[in-house]
Amino acid sequence: MSDGSDNQLLFVPLGGAGEIGMNLNLYAYGDAWIIVDLGITFADSYLPGVEILMPDPSFIEERRDKLLGIVLTHAHEDHLGAVAHLWPRLRCPVYATPFAGTILGSKLSETGIEAEVPLYEIPRAGAFTLGPFDIRYFPITHSIAEANGLVIRTPAGTIFHTGDWKFDSDPVICPPTDEAALKALGDEGVLALVCDSTNVFNQTESGSEAAVGDNLREVLADHPGRILVTTFASNIARLASLGRAAVALDRHLCLVGRSLIRNVEVARALGYLDGFPPLVDESEVGYLPREKVMIVSTGCQGEGRAALSRIAQGQHRHIALGEGDLVVFSSKQIPGNELAIGRLINNLAEQGIKVMTERDAFIHVSGHPSRPELERMYDLIRPEIAVPVHGERRHLMAHAELARQKGAKQAVVVTNGKVVRLAPGPAEVVDEVKVGRLALDGDRLVPVDGDVIATRRRIMYNGYLGVAVAVDGDGHLLAKPSLDLQGIPGGEAGGPVEAAILRALDRATEGFKEAVRRDDRHLAEGLRIVARRAAKAATGKETGPITKVHVIRVQ
Amino acid sequence: MSDGSDNQLLFVPLGGAGEIGMNLNLYAYGDAWIIVDLGITFADSYLPGVEILMPDPSFIEERRDKLLGIVLTHAHEDHLGAVAHLWPRLRCPVYATPFAGTILGSKLSETGIEAEVPLYEIPRAGAFTLGPFDIRYFPITHSIAEANGLVIRTPAGTIFHTGDWKFDSDPVICPPTDEAALKALGDEGVLALVCDSTNVFNQTESGSEAAVGDNLREVLADHPGRILVTTFASNIARLASLGRAAVALDRHLCLVGRSLIRNVEVARALGYLDGFPPLVDESEVGYLPREKVMIVSTGCQGEGRAALSRIAQGQHRHIALGEGDLVVFSSKQIPGNELAIGRLINNLAEQGIKVMTERDAFIHVSGHPSRPELERMYDLIRPEIAVPVHGERRHLMAHAELARQKGAKQAVVVTNGKVVRLAPGPAEVVDEVKVGRLALDGDRLVPVDGDVIATRRRIMYNGYLGVAVAVDGDGHLLAKPSLDLQGIPGGEAGGPVEAAILRALDRATEGFKEAVRRDDRHLAEGLRIVARRAAKAATGKETGPITKVHVIRVQ
Repeated sequence: MSDGSDNQLLFVPLGGAGEIGMNLNLYAYGDAWIIVDLGITFADSYLPGVEILMPDPSFIEERRDKLLGIVLTHAHEDHLGAVAHLWPRLRCPVYATPFAGTILGSKLSETGIEAEVPLYEIPRAGAFTLGPFDIRYFPITHSIAEANGLVIRTPAGTIFHTGDWKFDSDPVICPPTDEAALKALGDEGVLALVCDSTNVFNQTESGSEAAVGDNLREVLADHPGRILVTTFASNIARLASLGRAAVALDRHLCLVGRSLIRNVEVARALGYLDGFPPLVDESEVGYLPREKVMIVSTGCQGEGRAALSRIAQGQHRHIALGEGDLVVFSSKQIPGNELAIGRLINNLAEQGIKVMTERDAFIHVSGHPSRPELERMYDLIRPEIAVPVHGERRHLMAHAELARQKGAKQAVVVTNGKVVRLAPGPAEVVDEVKVGRLALDGDRLVPVDGDVIATRRRIMYNGYLGVAVAVDGDGHLLAKPSLDLQGIPGGEAGGPVEAAILRALDRATEGFKEAVRRDDRHLAEGLRIVARRAAKAATGKETGPITKVHVIRVQ
Repeated sequence: MSDGSDNQLLFVPLGGAGEIGMNLNLYAYGDAWIIVDLGITFADSYLPGVEILMPDPSFIEERRDKLLGIVLTHAHEDHLGAVAHLWPRLRCPVYATPFAGTILGSKLSETGIEAEVPLYEIPRAGAFTLGPFDIRYFPITHSIAEANGLVIRTPAGTIFHTGDWKFDSDPVICPPTDEAALKALGDEGVLALVCDSTNVFNQTESGSEAAVGDNLREVLADHPGRILVTTFASNIARLASLGRAAVALDRHLCLVGRSLIRNVEVARALGYLDGFPPLVDESEVGYLPREKVMIVSTGCQGEGRAALSRIAQGQHRHIALGEGDLVVFSSKQIPGNELAIGRLINNLAEQGIKVMTERDAFIHVSGHPSRPELERMYDLIRPEIAVPVHGERRHLMAHAELARQKGAKQAVVVTNGKVVRLAPGPAEVVDEVKVGRLALDGDRLVPVDGDVIATRRRIMYNGYLGVAVAVDGDGHLLAKPSLDLQGIPGGEAGGPVEAAILRALDRATEGFKEAVRRDDRHLAEGLRIVARRAAKAATGKETGPITKVHVIRVQ
C-alpha cells in the first residue's frame, strides 16, 4: 500500500479482528506507526503438531524504520504472547505497565532476548509520547491485574482503545473503572472507540468478581475432603478471593503449576495480593489432613501437560486426589477445549472425585463486556466512529449495530488486513494489506497455509508411501525396490498392500520408454503414479497416500 | 472369560457405556447371546484421517455360534450405524421396526450386503422370541421416528432396556409414551432398568417437541427474506413441524441434503408425515420470490461436506443465500463440533445472513431425559437393579446416585467390557472382556490404538524424513543419498535442514564398523539415528521426524 499522507490517521489490525485471539493492532499518523498488543492464539486441532499461532507481521516489519513502539495493554497471552517470538523482526521499544512488563520480562529471558529488548515500564495511569501519539494508560477492569485501555491523542483526534475490559463495581484487587474519567474523556471528544466485542451476544451483565469470591467461599464451606480449585493463572482477583476463602475455611493454601506460581509472585511483588495467606509447598500437601487443604492449580482447559491433568492421571509428583475430594473449575470452557475438559472431568469422576463447574454454581464471571456494559461505554465515550475489535465476524457485526443504535455516527466492521482511515473525512476502508498466521514449530515460524503444515495434514489423512529404487544408466533395476508404508491400513511389512505395490512396480518398470527410464525425474514420476494407484486400490481409500520415489542412479 | 453357567443372566456393554456414542450392548442367558444396538461414533480431531469409529466386536464374534440376533432400538447412527460394517463378522439375524429397518436397508445396499443380511421387520410394539429371550418393542419418545425401549423377559427376570428416550406430552408424530403401560410393567416386577444417562445433569425437563414447533412458526413469521432451517435429518417430528410452519407462512418447502431427503421419504412411506406439504426441488428455488421459500437442510454440525456448508461457501449448485436471508439452527452443538459450527456461522454472518441458534430462541429440545424425567421413569418401573448406560463416566455415576435415591436396591456403574451378572444373586461385575474401537479407513477397519493411526499422529506432530542409499557389498555409498522431507520446517529441497542432514550422513557412513556396513538392517539403523539427530538439531523440535532409511544393496 501507499503509506498515509501527512495528516492521515489510520487503523490497521493484523490480528484479532475477525477472530478472538492473537491481537495485533496498528495505528499510523503520517508515516509514524505504533503497534498496540502483539499476542498469540492457541492452535486448534485443525493444525497438526502446532501449539501456538501468531499474526504474520510482514506488513509492519517492512516499515520498521517508521515503527515507534509496541504498546501492550495487559499481560494475557493473546495480547503479549507473541512479543518474545516476533520482536526480533521488529526491534523497537516496548511499553507496558509493571505487571505486564514483569510477565513479559520472564518470557523474554526464556527465549534469551531479554537483554536486547528495550522494555519501558510505565506506571499505572502513566503517559508517554511516541512521535505524534500522546498515549495514556487508562486503568480498566478485566480478568487480570493491571488491564488498561489506551487514550491515544493525535493531531487528527483522540482514540480510546479499550483493550479487554468489563465494568465491575467490586473487582477485588484494583479500584473499579473510573467512569467519571471516561465521561470526561467523552466530553472532551473522542474520534474513535476501538472496543472489545467478545461478549456482545450476552444480554445480561456478567456479574462482579467480588460476588464470585463470596459465592466460592460459600459453596466450598461444607466440603469434608481436599479441595482443588482450577482457574486461569493470571486472574489475580480470583486468586485473591481464593486466598480469602482458604483463610475463612481454615485451610492451607497450596499453588500448583508454574505459570500460577509466577503470576502470584509478580502480583505479590506489586502489592496486589496484600493479606494473601502463607503458602504451603506442594511437597507438604500429602502430610496435611485432607480437610485442611485447598489447592489452586493450572489446567482448567484440560491442557494435557498442566498440573490438573497430571494430578487426575495420578502422575503428579506430590499431589494425589481421591474418593471424596472436590475439584472446582472456576473458569469457562474456551471453545475448542470442550473435549479435553470433558475427558479430564470423566477421569476425575471415575476416581470418585466430585467435580463442580460454572454450570453447577456461580463460580466464574467473564472479563469482557456484555451488551449492557457496552451500551454504558458508548453512553460515556460518545465516539464519532466505532471500531469493534476482539471478535469473530459475527461479533463485530452485532457490535457495530449496537454502536449505531447508541448514536455512533459511523461503525466500521474491519477484519485483519483492512486499512481504515479514521481521519480526515469519513471513516472508511482505503486499502488492504498482507496478513497471515505463523505457527511456531520447534524454534521456527512457518506460515500455517504453507507447505509444511499442508503436507502433514495430507499425510494425516492419507498416510505416506516411500519407494526407493537403484537403477543403472538405462533405468534397469539393480535390486528389488525398497518400500516404506506409514499410516496405511494393511500396510505392515510383508502385508497385502505392500505386496500389491511391489507387483505393480515390477510390471511397470520395464514398460517405460527409454527416455523416461534414463531421466531421474521422469522415471520417479512414472513409478510414483504406479505405486500410488496400487496403494489406493489395495486400501479402498478415495485418495492415495502421499507418495515419494527415490531414484538412485548407479552408473 | 468363562461363559455363563446355565441360569446366569449377564449384561456386557462393548460400546456406549462410559462414552456417548457407538452403542453395543450384549445380554446373555446361559449360553445364548443377543446384541442390542450396534452403532458408530464420529471421530474427533484426535484421530487423524478417520471419520467413523465403531466398537471392536471380537468378544461376541468369537461366540457367534451362540449369538441369536441383533436387536435395534432405533435408527440413529450411534445405534445402528455399525451394522453395515460389522455384520459380516457376526452373520446373525437383525431385528428392527419398520423405520429403522428401512434406513438400515439403504445402508446395507450401499455396502453391497443387503441380500445376505436376514433383516426382520417387527411392527411397532411387536414381540418376538430369541431362545430364552422374549422381546417386546416398547414405543418411546425420542428425537427420531419409532424409537423403542425393549422389554426383555428371561427366566431370570425382566429387563427394561430403555434405548434413547424422553417424556413428551406432545411429541408431534407418534403418541406420547404410554406411562400406564410402564407402570404396569413396574407392577409386574422389573429386575433391571438399563437406561439412558445423557442428560442426567439437566435439572429441568427439556420441553415438548410441539412447543418447539409452535415457537419456530412464531420466530420465522416476520422474516422478509429466504429462510433456511438446519436440523438433524432423522428428527421427523421437527420436520413435520417445519412442514406445518411452511404452510402457515405460505412458503414453498425445499429439502436439501441426501440423508434428509432419504429420511423424509421413509417417514412419508410409513405414514409419519401425513399433511406434509408438497416439496419444490432445489433447482426451482432460485426462481421463487425470496419471501416464498423455506429451505430445510443438513449440516447443523458444521460438517464440511453437508449442504449448509456448501451453501455458505457459495459452492452449492442450486441454492445461494445472501444479505437479508435467515439461517436457523434448530439443533444443538454436539461437543467437539463447536469450532466447525462457529466457522460456519461466521461465514454466514460475513455475507449479511442473519443467524439464529438455540441460544437466541426456543427452537430446539433434546431427545434425552433430564433428571425429573429419569425420576419419573424410576417411579414407574421401580427396578431392583439400575444399570445406567449411554453416558460418560460422570453421567453414569450421577445416574446411579439418582437411581439409589429413587429406591433402586442396586445401581451398577458399568463401563465397556465389564461383565455384569444381573442374576442370580446381587448384581456385580464378575469379569472383564476385550473391548476397543475400530476406525473405518478406506474400506478397512483398523484398531484406533494400533500402528496405522499412531504413525499418522506421530508424523502429524513431527514430520517425516526418508533417506535412500545405494551401497555396494561393503556398504560404501554408490551415489549421493536421496532425501525426502515431509512437513518439516525449513525442509524445502535445497534448504538448510536438507543440507544439514546430507552433511551428517556424509560424515557418518564411512565411520561405521565393517560389520555394520555389511548388514542392511544395522546400516539402516545407524544412518537413521544420524539423519534424525541432524534433523532435530536443524529444526529445534523436541522430537525428531519419523525417519526411515532405505538401504539398497547393489552387489
